Amino acid sequence: MKTYIGIDLGGTNVRVAKVSSDGKILAQEKGPSYGTEGPEKVMKNIKELIRKIPNYQEVAGIGIGVPGPCDTINGKMVMSTNLYGFTGYPLAKEITEEFNIPTFIDNDANVAGLAEALVGAGKGLPVVYYVTISTGIGGALIANGQVVSGQNGFAGEIANLIVDHNGEKLNHLNPGAVENEASGTAIVRKAKAKIKDIEIEHAGNVFDLAQQGNKEAKEIVDKVIYDLALMFSMIAHVSDPWMFILGGGMMKSKDKFLPQVIEKYKELVHVPMRNTQFVEAKLDEPGVIGAAMLPVSKGE
Amino acid sequence: MKTYIGIDLGGTNVRVAKVSSDGKILAQEKGPSYGTEGPEKVMKNIKELIRKIPNYQEVAGIGIGVPGPCDTINGKMVMSTNLYGFTGYPLAKEITEEFNIPTFIDNDANVAGLAEALVGAGKGLPVVYYVTISTGIGGALIANGQVVSGQNGFAGEIANLIVDHNGEKLNHLNPGAVENEASGTAIVRKAKAKIKDIEIEHAGNVFDLAQQGNKEAKEIVDKVIYDLALMFSMIAHVSDPWMFILGGGMMKSKDKFLPQVIEKYKELVHVPMRNTQFVEAKLDEPGVIGAAMLPVSKGE
Repeated sequence: MKTYIGIDLGGTNVRVAKVSSDGKILAQEKGPSYGTEGPEKVMKNIKELIRKIPNYQEVAGIGIGVPGPCDTINGKMVMSTNLYGFTGYPLAKEITEEFNIPTFIDNDANVAGLAEALVGAGKGLPVVYYVTISTGIGGALIANGQVVSGQNGFAGEIANLIVDHNGEKLNHLNPGAVENEASGTAIVRKAKAKIKDIEIEHAGNVFDLAQQGNKEAKEIVDKVIYDLALMFSMIAHVSDPWMFILGGGMMKSKDKFLPQVIEKYKELVHVPMRNTQFVEAKLDEPGVIGAAMLPVSKGE
Repeated sequence: MKTYIGIDLGGTNVRVAKVSSDGKILAQEKGPSYGTEGPEKVMKNIKELIRKIPNYQEVAGIGIGVPGPCDTINGKMVMSTNLYGFTGYPLAKEITEEFNIPTFIDNDANVAGLAEALVGAGKGLPVVYYVTISTGIGGALIANGQVVSGQNGFAGEIANLIVDHNGEKLNHLNPGAVENEASGTAIVRKAKAKIKDIEIEHAGNVFDLAQQGNKEAKEIVDKVIYDLALMFSMIAHVSDPWMFILGGGMMKSKDKFLPQVIEKYKELVHVPMRNTQFVEAKLDEPGVIGAAMLPVSKGE
C-alpha cells in the first residue's frame, strides 16, 4: 500500500504524519510551527520534521493543510493571517523541490472534508459536503474524490452565505451572513444581548435554556435552526451531495438542534433531495489524514 | 481523434449527432421524439436515428441529455414530466446493451454546461458554473472535467435558492425562490402587476422601460439585479468557480442588467473572489455537443 506525508500546519503548532492510502497514521511528529516568525523558519522546521519520519523518502506524495484559502493550482496561500508572510509564498513548490516528491496544499477545512470523504464518514460517496460549525462556520465540497477548492480557494466559504436580510454588518462578512447568525459565537452574542439574568458561557448553555423553556433562548434557537436549514438548502441546490458531514464544537449539542434542522431542511428542498444524509464526522485526526489524502486525490 | 454520439432528447424533438472529442459536429440526424408515446416508441426511434449516423459503431461512447433530473450513476431519470413514462426507466442501460457502447445520461442544463466547460467558453478551467436565465433559471456545476450532478441530479437546481424572505409561495418552488423573483417569467409577472398602462410582452420590455426612466420598471429591475447578484454570490461561496457561463434568453438584454449584477456581486463576496469572470455561453448547439461530452468526461 502506498504511503503519504500529511502536514497539518497551524499558526501555533504543526503536525507531520506518515499515512497509508486508507488513512491510517503510521508515524507522527509534532511541534511548534513558529507561525509568527516568517516562512524561512517555518519551512526549515517542517523539513526537519519530515526528515524525522521513518523512510520519508518512500512516500508517493506530500499534502499540507494550511489555515486560510489557497491557490491550489500554484500551491500558494491566497490570504494568510495566522502564518506570517505566507500570502503568495510558494509553499508547495519549495517542498516538492526539497524532497523531489509531488506536494499539494489546501486549507484546513477542505483537507478535513477530504479526509472524511475518502476514508471517513463519506467513504465511497461521489459528492459530499463537509460543514463545520463552532466559533465559525466552514465547509468543503468534495466531488469525485477531489476537493473543489475553487479559483481562489473560497469554495466552502459558506460562512458568508446570507440567511437574514435584516442582519447587521458586524465584521468582514455580509450582513446577515450565516456565521453571524448561527455559529456558536453568534448564539452566545445573541443570548448575552437578550438574556440578562443568566450567565452564558457557550452555545450549549443557550440550547439547554431553550429546552428548559426559556422564552428568549427558544427564540434564538428557533432562528438558528431555520438559518442553518436555509444554509444547508443553499448548498444542496448548488451541489446536491449524498451526505452532509458535520464537524465542529456545536455538534456536542447536536441532539438539541440537528433533528429540527433536518426537518426544516426537508421543507426547503425539492422532494427527492430529502434523502440527503446528515452524518457526524468520525475521524479523530482529520487534519493530518486529510493533508495526506491531497496527493491521493490528485492521483499520486 | 475519438468520436462520440450525443443525443439531445426533448419532449418534442430529438437530435442525434456524431461529435469529435474537441466538440465538432461531424454528422447529425433529427426528428420528433414521440415524448408522449412512452419509452418503447421513444427508444426505438432513438436507436434508428443512431443507426443512420455514418460509422456509428466506431464511437467511443454515447451521451444523452434529457429534460429532467437524473440518477447519473444508474442512468435513469429521477423525475420526468416532458417524457412520458421515463421516471426510473433504465435509459442508459438499454442503449449500452443495444450497441455495446458505454452510455451516460444527464439533464439538459448539466449537459449544456459540460459542453461550455469542456469545449466552449470555459475550456481549460478547473471549475465553472453554467447559469441559464430565461423563462426559468437553471444551472450546472462542472469541476475537474465532470458534471457534479449530485445524488438526485439536483445539483444546479439554483432556481429554488431563496433570495427574498418576503416572497410569495407561487408554485412548487420555495417562497422567494430566485426563479420566482428574477427569471424572465418573474419579471413579466411583476411588471404586469405594477405597470397597468403599457403592454408587457417579455422581460426585454421591462428592461427598456427601466432605461427610459419608468419608475415601476426601474424598481423591478433594481430588485432583479440584487436578487441575481445574491444568487451568484451563493453559488460562489459554495463552489468558487473560475467563471460563470451565462446562457438563456435574458442574455439578449444583458447590457441592461449584467454589468450592474456583477458590480453588486462584488459587494457580496470576499475580496479575492471579485475576479470571477462572467462570460456569455458561446456554443450554438450545446445540447448535442454536451451530451457527446458526457462519455468524454467519464474517461471514455
